[in-house]
Amino acid sequence: MQGTMKAVIKPSPGPGAEIAIVPIPQPGPKDVLIKVRAASICGTDVHIYTWDPWAQARIKPPIIFGHEVAGDVIEVGSEVTRVKVGDYVSAESHVVCGACHQCLTGQGHVCQNFKILGVDLPGVFAEYVAIPEANAWKNAKNVPSEIASIQDPLGNAIHTVFSGEITGNTVAVLGCGPIGVLAVAVSRTAGAASVFATDINDYRLGLARKMGAALAVNSRETDPVEAILKATNGLGVDVVLEMSGNPTAVRQGFKMLRNGGRISLLGIPSRPMELDLANDIVFKGAIVHGITGRRLYDTWYKMAGLFRAGLDVRPAITHRFRLDQFEEGMQVMISGNSGKVVLFP
Amino acid sequence: MQGTMKAVIKPSPGPGAEIAIVPIPQPGPKDVLIKVRAASICGTDVHIYTWDPWAQARIKPPIIFGHEVAGDVIEVGSEVTRVKVGDYVSAESHVVCGACHQCLTGQGHVCQNFKILGVDLPGVFAEYVAIPEANAWKNAKNVPSEIASIQDPLGNAIHTVFSGEITGNTVAVLGCGPIGVLAVAVSRTAGAASVFATDINDYRLGLARKMGAALAVNSRETDPVEAILKATNGLGVDVVLEMSGNPTAVRQGFKMLRNGGRISLLGIPSRPMELDLANDIVFKGAIVHGITGRRLYDTWYKMAGLFRAGLDVRPAITHRFRLDQFEEGMQVMISGNSGKVVLFP
Amino acid sequence: MQGTMKAVIKPSPGPGAEIAIVPIPQPGPKDVLIKVRAASICGTDVHIYTWDPWAQARIKPPIIFGHEVAGDVIEVGSEVTRVKVGDYVSAESHVVCGACHQCLTGQGHVCQNFKILGVDLPGVFAEYVAIPEANAWKNAKNVPSEIASIQDPLGNAIHTVFSGEITGNTVAVLGCGPIGVLAVAVSRTAGAASVFATDINDYRLGLARKMGAALAVNSRETDPVEAILKATNGLGVDVVLEMSGNPTAVRQGFKMLRNGGRISLLGIPSRPMELDLANDIVFKGAIVHGITGRRLYDTWYKMAGLFRAGLDVRPAITHRFRLDQFEEGMQVMISGNSGKVVLFP
Amino acid sequence: MQGTMKAVIKPSPGPGAEIAIVPIPQPGPKDVLIKVRAASICGTDVHIYTWDPWAQARIKPPIIFGHEVAGDVIEVGSEVTRVKVGDYVSAESHVVCGACHQCLTGQGHVCQNFKILGVDLPGVFAEYVAIPEANAWKNAKNVPSEIASIQDPLGNAIHTVFSGEITGNTVAVLGCGPIGVLAVAVSRTAGAASVFATDINDYRLGLARKMGAALAVNSRETDPVEAILKATNGLGVDVVLEMSGNPTAVRQGFKMLRNGGRISLLGIPSRPMELDLANDIVFKGAIVHGITGRRLYDTWYKMAGLFRAGLDVRPAITHRFRLDQFEEGMQVMISGNSGKVVLFP
Repeated sequence: MQGTMKAVIKPSPGPGAEIAIVPIPQPGPKDVLIKVRAASICGTDVHIYTWDPWAQARIKPPIIFGHEVAGDVIEVGSEVTRVKVGDYVSAESHVVCGACHQCLTGQGHVCQNFKILGVDLPGVFAEYVAIPEANAWKNAKNVPSEIASIQDPLGNAIHTVFSGEITGNTVAVLGCGPIGVLAVAVSRTAGAASVFATDINDYRLGLARKMGAALAVNSRETDPVEAILKATNGLGVDVVLEMSGNPTAVRQGFKMLRNGGRISLLGIPSRPMELDLANDIVFKGAIVHGITGRRLYDTWYKMAGLFRAGLDVRPAITHRFRLDQFEEGMQVMISGNSGKVVLFP
Repeated sequence: MQGTMKAVIKPSPGPGAEIAIVPIPQPGPKDVLIKVRAASICGTDVHIYTWDPWAQARIKPPIIFGHEVAGDVIEVGSEVTRVKVGDYVSAESHVVCGACHQCLTGQGHVCQNFKILGVDLPGVFAEYVAIPEANAWKNAKNVPSEIASIQDPLGNAIHTVFSGEITGNTVAVLGCGPIGVLAVAVSRTAGAASVFATDINDYRLGLARKMGAALAVNSRETDPVEAILKATNGLGVDVVLEMSGNPTAVRQGFKMLRNGGRISLLGIPSRPMELDLANDIVFKGAIVHGITGRRLYDTWYKMAGLFRAGLDVRPAITHRFRLDQFEEGMQVMISGNSGKVVLFP
Repeated sequence: MQGTMKAVIKPSPGPGAEIAIVPIPQPGPKDVLIKVRAASICGTDVHIYTWDPWAQARIKPPIIFGHEVAGDVIEVGSEVTRVKVGDYVSAESHVVCGACHQCLTGQGHVCQNFKILGVDLPGVFAEYVAIPEANAWKNAKNVPSEIASIQDPLGNAIHTVFSGEITGNTVAVLGCGPIGVLAVAVSRTAGAASVFATDINDYRLGLARKMGAALAVNSRETDPVEAILKATNGLGVDVVLEMSGNPTAVRQGFKMLRNGGRISLLGIPSRPMELDLANDIVFKGAIVHGITGRRLYDTWYKMAGLFRAGLDVRPAITHRFRLDQFEEGMQVMISGNSGKVVLFP
Repeated sequence: MQGTMKAVIKPSPGPGAEIAIVPIPQPGPKDVLIKVRAASICGTDVHIYTWDPWAQARIKPPIIFGHEVAGDVIEVGSEVTRVKVGDYVSAESHVVCGACHQCLTGQGHVCQNFKILGVDLPGVFAEYVAIPEANAWKNAKNVPSEIASIQDPLGNAIHTVFSGEITGNTVAVLGCGPIGVLAVAVSRTAGAASVFATDINDYRLGLARKMGAALAVNSRETDPVEAILKATNGLGVDVVLEMSGNPTAVRQGFKMLRNGGRISLLGIPSRPMELDLANDIVFKGAIVHGITGRRLYDTWYKMAGLFRAGLDVRPAITHRFRLDQFEEGMQVMISGNSGKVVLFP
């Protein structure tokens, strides 16, 4: 399709972003062109917006950013076969190489050469976006577009929750940002015995309760290790899902984990941190999983199945804006008092 | 404790059973004595009652039968340490040897030398029963006694459901006897995408619907393979749980299973049966699990966790009788128009 | 490359095959053209040659058959990126769709739409063959071409052996055709405690011994269930690898399996067969795996690792012919007194 | 049995130990009395001997220490059933409670209440020792006593190696103390593609080579991360087995691990250490396993199977002494220039 469109771009190195009128992207032979219905804001987008050290090192402006999206396929490249015009799709944001050891053995989520929409490739904060056919996930027609757009982070949560057993287990979710509260809901739908959540922000703890947490502990006020050990009769939890990246929380996670339990780490500590490997991993017989991205495409299939099982993530979406109000969306995200924030072109 | 008690005994080879007054059993040094609150009837008990060929070959009268029970510990043997007088317990019915290859490698459910309460050892259709401490499972105080008594078959269902992945998966349950309908409820609590049930008895299909089946197919009226393939867009189900032991149902189960899917067999065909191994297992890349008993004691921990997650099995209990009305209980079981039938001493 | 080449073709429906001069195949944009160094004969090729009922139903002559091959890439299509001219490759014979549920969740070996080289697509009994880039496996330079050509069946053996634990386990291999004897060697390299083999052909049992079987039982002379129970002190084996497809052998496999053991079925019974599900699967708590093809490409990576670990499959190759002697190769295969038979163009 | 025996005891708090004449231990009703054939020295015994801070905090003299042992059962308690007088046994050194959550779910190796022979209970550096029947492992008659006595640490190695896949994989073993070099041999027997070893002691690196390491890197002279990345064409290894507890080695282990690989930690860092969780675990999708003890009794069965598969650990035993030469054994251990050191009463 020819013509121009509105998009949120980072025009040059430095804080901030702006709405620009740019050409509609042209899909290559293996791509599909999507008319965006909804696009949601990730913490990564906030890093790009505020131009933090990570963004300075990784992002090459000018670039349209954003990578969480749902919309309708309106054009397909000449070699596209699986996806059709009219399909209602969301994007898997990691574009993998398909040729490395990991891609060839079912570990595409840790592909050696992956690129990310809106980070390494043009993003989705726009009226249209072209993505590889391989990254287009067909949604059920009845999934609302704002729900469909948050499947990328919901997929992170699902990948984390299901890196081990969950049904019938006690679970602690550390960090009640959007992925944390989504993990609470997913764990509940999967039949976790009890889900305990920790954070230092009461707004977010409130969200965790809405999503089904049996206990939501403000770690500034209450020792979360003590609280969760008490709630498990001193045993500790079967599963810890670390979503904060905060070193103190990470260490607490290991302390509240029962012997032989599993801790899955999705949160990203900003620098190396101290850990008591002897007591917290070795003697405990702990299983530690580093989690990044989504399993391709097992996680997406499980997500579709969870929706059919009744997974309700609506309370996680707290704010909605028009695309040209993106600055307001960024400010809400920065405030910390939000769940997912969705933009509509 | 000294004295006598009422018990249901099979006095001699042949059909039927009777209430008798017998001595209260004396616990050995490793046993606990339970005052029975509730005892439920298993299909196995019906086999013993009707004196079918299996019973004729296995049972040595006189014997008190029954093996599903909940009650209070009123006495403990001299070497008992984990269980205390006053504990509210249920019985794991399989008494394993603890010394064979299987027992020593976490596979006690297929112990080479196990014995069964009420089959090889004195049973629970009585006011009191003595069981090994190792077989006493401590219940949460708030579990009603009739629910606590059906945990042995509920454990069969849980063992079957969780012999592989279940959350987000499509599931077919073949056979809506008590264990089948329990498996429907368990699968739902674990977040199965959809549960499809089949049987030839409308009463039981009604129970399956009450327990959360999305579709309950009477195989006499509707081709279940066709119906379930249709409900899965031709893919087939991810998981089949075979609870009927009926050869036709077993074969249908393989046909409705998707390539690479898992079928767990708990139902017991009464004789060797024909199977299309090439198409139904080999080319399909199927995973087939034989299921017997409960994992010791992983299944019981998962059961406790599922209760905390909200598992509600009350609709599965359809009839309640006093112990001395056991004949009525047997007749209801024989009619096929029942879920679990519970006896109260 | 333009020009003509020699190839073995089935010119029309009916028994037999012939050498023909045909055009060299032209690789499409995603294909690579291979100059064949070695091509080995599979049992499937014998079915096509003798024109059995399976072949009559599946094969559409004229067709070049054969699907086990190693050679050098001499031309690549315009979109090929991973494979280069000069690469020394073998072919994965299953061409999968990449778009079905199974392909998108790491189960491409049970793709709903796969096609097979030399069955549904032009084959490898020729001087040149064009295959999709995705199906080209890069060999280490030091692997002899005859070894490289048998990796497709070796991959079947590896897929079967590693569908569960093997190291330190007792293993029975039923059927000592080429894949069976390869499974013996693979199990030995992986540190199986003991490998027991059964067949009714002494030549093949001899091969099994050469590949490392501790015991090779002629089932016509000795009851293999008795022999293997005796060799395991009555316990039964941890693992059965069924490679014969013979109903008697399959049933024996279940009888010699220990409680809780694993049986992997690769052999293809020619029709439905009777099985004692109650005793052989349910009560035994058996794990049964249907095996087809190779895991894409986990199996191939494991194969490369096994070669580095010292896996020696040379004794499995018993006959070598020039391509135009293919009739002799077929006759040797039909005699049953062979391992792998390799053709050299 | 009545009478006295020679034993190595720590008579009172402080460095050193001495030979004493003490009463032969009397087995309780569930114990077996073993006449010691061989007992080997663990690093733990050296800590007790030198009286380091760990020993000062944990050990309550007077105590006979030592926990690695093989010998003959000469007396059994009244309730012992599985073990017989005349059995040739080794000891599992961890005496578990059998009643905690972990013990009841197949995770006895992380029992909440376990005690250790020679640490919390009377040890094996003596002519006789009484151990619980449950801790007696029956050896094959043909295993030499010095091999049988080192099965406790060999079991540590096996538990570590098999906490994930090993066959066909590249493996790095960090730290070539006794357990490290045993892990090299075990990995080789299991068909690892290549085993790379690192240490800072050339004597130990020599042992690693003898046990089958393809590459033995002195980390003081060569950057082990660089060397191992080079040996894996830049990919990194599939598996890291951390046996040193040295923080630098641990960090190197994470750096040489491929994306999606597995690192098993058996070595015990003496204090909390810094780790780059973001890059080394999260983004890498690493799987980290804390390893302690042996799986009860899966590890022991696998050990027996590995011996039958040809596992040869003889080169790991470098020194042999009479029991009353234990001081020499301790000095050799302290020197670092040894593998396993075995004492014979």
